Amino acid sequence: MVPPTIAQQLAAKQREISVAEFFERNRQILGFDNLQRALLTTVKEGVDNGLDASEEAGVLPDILVEISKESEDRYRVAVTDNGPGILRREIPNVFGRLLYGSRFHANRQARGQQGIGISAAVLYANLTTARPAKVVSKVEEEEAAHVLELTIDTQKNQPKVLSDDLELWDRPHGTRIELVLKARYVRGRQSAYEYLRGTAIVNPHARLVLVEPDGTRVTFERATTDLPAPAKETLPHPYGLELGELGYLLKAAKRPTLAEFLAKDLQGVSGRSSKDVLARARLRPSQTPGSVEGADRERLLEALHAVPLIPPSADGLSPIGAMLIKRGLRNVLGELRPEFFAPPVSRPPKVRGGFPFMVEVGLVYGGGLPADQPVQILRFANRVPLLFQQGACAITNAIASMDWRRYGLDQKGGSGVPVGPGVILVHVASTKIPFTSEAKEALAEDPELDKEVTLALQAAARHLRTHLSRMSRRDFASEKFAIIQRILPKLAEKTSHLVGKPVPDLTPVITRIMDVVNVETQVVPEPTGVRVPVEVTNYTPRPRVLELFCEIPPELMARASFDPPPDGTESELGRVWWTLPKLVPNGRTKLTVKFPPKTEVDSNDFDWYVAGIDESHVLGADPLPGDWDVRLPRTIVEASEQAAAEAAATGVSTEEEVDYDAAEASAHASDED
Amino acid sequence: MVPPTIAQQLAAKQREISVAEFFERNRQILGFDNLQRALLTTVKEGVDNGLDASEEAGVLPDILVEISKESEDRYRVAVTDNGPGILRREIPNVFGRLLYGSRFHANRQARGQQGIGISAAVLYANLTTARPAKVVSKVEEEEAAHVLELTIDTQKNQPKVLSDDLELWDRPHGTRIELVLKARYVRGRQSAYEYLRGTAIVNPHARLVLVEPDGTRVTFERATTDLPAPAKETLPHPYGLELGELGYLLKAAKRPTLAEFLAKDLQGVSGRSSKDVLARARLRPSQTPGSVEGADRERLLEALHAVPLIPPSADGLSPIGAMLIKRGLRNVLGELRPEFFAPPVSRPPKVRGGFPFMVEVGLVYGGGLPADQPVQILRFANRVPLLFQQGACAITNAIASMDWRRYGLDQKGGSGVPVGPGVILVHVASTKIPFTSEAKEALAEDPELDKEVTLALQAAARHLRTHLSRMSRRDFASEKFAIIQRILPKLAEKTSHLVGKPVPDLTPVITRIMDVVNVETQVVPEPTGVRVPVEVTNYTPRPRVLELFCEIPPELMARASFDPPPDGTESELGRVWWTLPKLVPNGRTKLTVKFPPKTEVDSNDFDWYVAGIDESHVLGADPLPGDWDVRLPRTIVEASEQAAAEAAATGVSTEEEVDYDAAEASAHASDED
Repeated sequence: MVPPTIAQQLAAKQREISVAEFFERNRQILGFDNLQRALLTTVKEGVDNGLDASEEAGVLPDILVEISKESEDRYRVAVTDNGPGILRREIPNVFGRLLYGSRFHANRQARGQQGIGISAAVLYANLTTARPAKVVSKVEEEEAAHVLELTIDTQKNQPKVLSDDLELWDRPHGTRIELVLKARYVRGRQSAYEYLRGTAIVNPHARLVLVEPDGTRVTFERATTDLPAPAKETLPHPYGLELGELGYLLKAAKRPTLAEFLAKDLQGVSGRSSKDVLARARLRPSQTPGSVEGADRERLLEALHAVPLIPPSADGLSPIGAMLIKRGLRNVLGELRPEFFAPPVSRPPKVRGGFPFMVEVGLVYGGGLPADQPVQILRFANRVPLLFQQGACAITNAIASMDWRRYGLDQKGGSGVPVGPGVILVHVASTKIPFTSEAKEALAEDPELDKEVTLALQAAARHLRTHLSRMSRRDFASEKFAIIQRILPKLAEKTSHLVGKPVPDLTPVITRIMDVVNVETQVVPEPTGVRVPVEVTNYTPRPRVLELFCEIPPELMARASFDPPPDGTESELGRVWWTLPKLVPNGRTKLTVKFPPKTEVDSNDFDWYVAGIDESHVLGADPLPGDWDVRLPRTIVEASEQAAAEAAATGVSTEEEVDYDAAEASAHASDED
Repeated sequence: MVPPTIAQQLAAKQREISVAEFFERNRQILGFDNLQRALLTTVKEGVDNGLDASEEAGVLPDILVEISKESEDRYRVAVTDNGPGILRREIPNVFGRLLYGSRFHANRQARGQQGIGISAAVLYANLTTARPAKVVSKVEEEEAAHVLELTIDTQKNQPKVLSDDLELWDRPHGTRIELVLKARYVRGRQSAYEYLRGTAIVNPHARLVLVEPDGTRVTFERATTDLPAPAKETLPHPYGLELGELGYLLKAAKRPTLAEFLAKDLQGVSGRSSKDVLARARLRPSQTPGSVEGADRERLLEALHAVPLIPPSADGLSPIGAMLIKRGLRNVLGELRPEFFAPPVSRPPKVRGGFPFMVEVGLVYGGGLPADQPVQILRFANRVPLLFQQGACAITNAIASMDWRRYGLDQKGGSGVPVGPGVILVHVASTKIPFTSEAKEALAEDPELDKEVTLALQAAARHLRTHLSRMSRRDFASEKFAIIQRILPKLAEKTSHLVGKPVPDLTPVITRIMDVVNVETQVVPEPTGVRVPVEVTNYTPRPRVLELFCEIPPELMARASFDPPPDGTESELGRVWWTLPKLVPNGRTKLTVKFPPKTEVDSNDFDWYVAGIDESHVLGADPLPGDWDVRLPRTIVEASEQAAAEAAATGVSTEEEVDYDAAEASAHASDED
């Protein structure tokens, strides 16, 4: 016999690899790198499935995680949910087969999208302890629960059922998965505990209970009984569709004509744009979708990308919302009491690769947060906390690529994670999250995603900058106040003594030196409601006609009442404004905003702006931004012009330097009045 | 009809997902995140396959990469290798089916191990341009080459052959794959160019040619015609085997008895340890492997982990080797001329999860490398450069977790990538690399791997520390020399003038102040050979009997000759030593090391050690490390003891401070002699 050639020898070794075999050998890809992470990943897959299931069934999630120690490095993990349960015939495939699931093709936001997670945990448990998974599941319409023990035949990627029973269960419906695996239990960073805590932040409608190996029972109680608006399945949007994907859609289309395909199988193509698309692509509306091939298909895609379409719908998305982001951060940071909560940013939905996504960002600063460490980054994707691979994540990269020095944070060389007492929360919601691996711990780089995250971060960072500059101006001003109030009386006293005259009233002098209008906001929670008194004082030597503008989160605006009534409001944007009565030097006016009892509100929720005075003469408010489309009364316009002229004439404001000689002279002058 | 319950609705959506569909939807996982990376990944998969194939066939690799532009964001990529070719019947599966390959089950180091890479490129090309892959392959035993055009049926994960021809090809054997894909071509960071350059560093036996879109032809010529020793297939080693894996091995075993299974299907179990294992596990040698189940199997695994076994063989590995690491780094860094090359570190092979692995580290420092930036990290896995996901890689984490300040590098807070003019090269070779994803760009965290990388880094870092402290001592000493030689003559002149006597000879005074033995090495390349003269000068005021030890890389040692002949050598360790003739004050002795012409050697290749004198009195050499098992002559031992006593008596050496008054006094004293 002729010996086989090298090509033949190599050919003899070629064979198919089952996906289960592949992941068994590469389990680090699924998040089973080490014992600690294996435990976390198992809990995570169980809980994510439970949350998805109960939300799909429109039930408030109630999830129980029990972890007990079997031996040195063996733990039993059981996750029980109150979801709708799984039909008996589906149980083996759901838990014992990789790449099998219900959410892969659904164009809608879900935690599980890959059909890998929980089967991977079963695979890992089986590999490390040779123990089968135990699944209990009951659907409402059946009397008893099914109890199955199963493993995975890795060479075939098929479930192997070892036992199959019925059992009475004291729940109307739900699922329980129990695994014994090689693992290590820790609390703290990157633990099941931290994962559940993070999950609670962004899923305030869920009740999560953790029973730790030592018997400790930790309950993350739900903070709201409102289920998030369910994410609807949506059609694919043409922006970002690739040629190949369009081909599959055309081939699979059941519509008789191309025009109908464009109108009903894609999202965002109106009747008008459909015509434009077909004209541009030189295609007939009546031809069948399946007949669009080759160069025709290329022209169709080019036209779909060129003609303006309706932006992707956010129906498939379930964002957290500004209110809950803030509340979540406040709960987690509790004792650390940050001094500043930037108004959370929710970007409008965008699309990448045909899938809609949106970005939400929260930012807090100061208080008890550590000032000498990198800011803490909280990453979330579809309401799931991401605890590993921070360095490999597009979210981290977007943060590290911004020059935070421009926004008042410390950052070596203007790149990298900035240093300071801050926490940055970023949530990406999408019908398809671009994870870097099946372990779903980091987002892959993507120009569209990067742009949206960066824009959201910048918006939050601008609020931070405003806050910090306001703080430093306030500090500067109170320092100045303190100096003036300490030194002037002494000067006056000494001078009066020397010249043998009575000590004069110093108020007008102080006013002249301060030369500032002060806006001061307090928050006073009372049993009858939360009162926010605002005082505007004219510490300048001339009368002022001012308009005062206020911006608060729209959801607060909806609950606010104002005294006196404002001269204008834009409720949707959370804007309200008043023309203040003329303020003589040292004159003061007050207004009050009221909220119902227990409204969560703090002074950082209020952004104050003024018109009618130069920026450098105001404290506690900013000049009105250009994007406020407000018609100012004539008097204000005149006063503004006058203020501008005044600022131009004097150059820099007198705030910077205090001339004590001048103060003394003034003291005499006023004395002689 | 009763409307379906929620559980039924959900069940109706359950379905299998083909692995091709999965990756098509999650192509970022495979390294196709963006246009630039898509091009690199395609080139990489083609070249890695080509290198694996030609090495398997025992042929020096000759790889041609041609990239041409089709339109704005469309490129044609063709990779041609001189491997053994692929049999016609295997071509469709190799290129048109994911999870199909010849190297997945081979327990041996290879670039491709997943059976995904090149098919993923075909999938991506098809998705983005709807163009089929064109494959040309010829095996030696056939006259003509097969030319196939194919795509992937993603729903079935099966190849679809569109055309099938024969063609004459002017090569004896080889394969060419040609794809048209949406991509972007760049040069520079994370480019196909950088990937090929990195590949050339660690594959000096390969010839790589790149034709760029503008027609530029870049050739990375092979630097050696020695093929690396082929990596042999090895049996699984019990260390790190999991219970499940052991179960598969036992089930699949064809041996009649358990004893034979242990001896022939596993690696490292000697006859003696086999007996110990069986006794400990309370199993009979004669029982069949398949009968070992449940608690028996657990005890068997426990015993295999407890009983000492022969360490895993490195036969399945193909390390780069210290010589080639150094040469590779020198080639890449060319013009930057680092001042210091640490002797490359090769750790002995270890095992994780039953798979052997080993770590190699190279470190260079100084010269033209930028001093104010993080050190450059060059990561390699199985001779493949890793260009993405640096932040997510266990190699980077090992570097960032070390406190490099202890080794003389700048590092904020003692963690993170250190800053300085350095390059760190880390190569991990393994029969199974734990990549974090199918894109094969980063290694997952693993305690064993982390330990080995850290140990290798520490070894290299110690050399760096020695170098830096030597440099700073040398700097300090030459400064001191300079000061003494500038000041003493002036002092002497002035004093002589004052007292009206002639200027004395200052040499003995200088000697007394310097109080140091200096070892100076030069490298003089000459046409007849590379000469390394070494001068030892006794700048101390007393006679010295010293032994001089030298360590050089063993491969250099093999080519070296010594004059005078050394008093001892340990060639395998690269060690050689001499007892020097007695050196009177100001006495000097010379010795020379010679190499053949063009030997690559520099002064950093020599580590000099001395015995017989206190550390603080030597420059250009270190005290002999404790791990040198050398019997010192009696005179040296005595001299050492004397030196130690001397050091103890004087406390700190006089090096630290120069007492000019004392110097002046000595000048007079010597004058009066």
